[in-house]
Amino acid sequence: MGEIDIEDLILTPLKRILHPKGDILHALKKSDVGYSSFGEAYFSTINYGEIKGWNKHKLMTLNLAVPVGEVTFVACNKGINDQSKPKFFKITLSQENYKRLTVPPGIWMAFKGNGHKTNLILNIASMEHDSNEIEKIDLEKIPYDFDSD
Amino acid sequence: MGEIDIEDLILTPLKRILHPKGDILHALKKSDVGYSSFGEAYFSTINYGEIKGWNKHKLMTLNLAVPVGEVTFVACNKGINDQSKPKFFKITLSQENYKRLTVPPGIWMAFKGNGHKTNLILNIASMEHDSNEIEKIDLEKIPYDFDSD
Repeated sequence: MGEIDIEDLILTPLKRILHPKGDILHALKKSDVGYSSFGEAYFSTINYGEIKGWNKHKLMTLNLAVPVGEVTFVACNKGINDQSKPKFFKITLSQENYKRLTVPPGIWMAFKGNGHKTNLILNIASMEHDSNEIEKIDLEKIPYDFDSD
Repeated sequence: MGEIDIEDLILTPLKRILHPKGDILHALKKSDVGYSSFGEAYFSTINYGEIKGWNKHKLMTLNLAVPVGEVTFVACNKGINDQSKPKFFKITLSQENYKRLTVPPGIWMAFKGNGHKTNLILNIASMEHDSNEIEKIDLEKIPYDFDSD
């Protein structure tokens, strides 16, 4: 995974099976690395130029894929109250870079919509939505420049 | 489910949670009616005017949602070698009619892409892909006019 610093993230190439009537895009199989359990599948959309985050799940493992548009995800392992330098991992997903990002619990995540039209994220979550296991902080609490390399 | 004739199909309204930065679209929770087990999640796309089908799964239960574009699904319970009149169920899904279609094994399915751009179907399947459990027949084997009401 190249420059990744956040050891438990998993980035897995996904198959696109091209077909003249319409392609098939893989997302997640029960036997895949990164699958732990099925709780819920849902879509998030993120409009052009918008950023959602930072969110951290205490219990949920996320499995993320972007079948439409382009989304830049940033993961951060900073403890909010510690003074250590945060480590970031940035990845841009789309059909052109069609991969699954597995995010274990305990990592701060933010994501930005890059496509001018629909940017669609599928999350196959290891548990059903539970607002009690989600922490949210304002974006400026962990400064990050999405436009940097 | 109105005029449905194929008793074991389930059509379930899904929530869209509107948000100024980008909406959330529900798909399937473990506790939902229609969920049996998780085997694989994948996307099918279907180009404008194209029809894929007929396909029948011997073992797999499908859970289908259409987050982008518009797709018309037709289900048929005809036995290929029987002479009885086939029963059809037709439903058009999109964000405007945002519902989950649960298809149990044993039903012939075909689907047509209606949107001029991307038509995206999520299938959360009860088992992993296995070509041995899929039957395929040519579209003309079960005549159906997708453009009829």
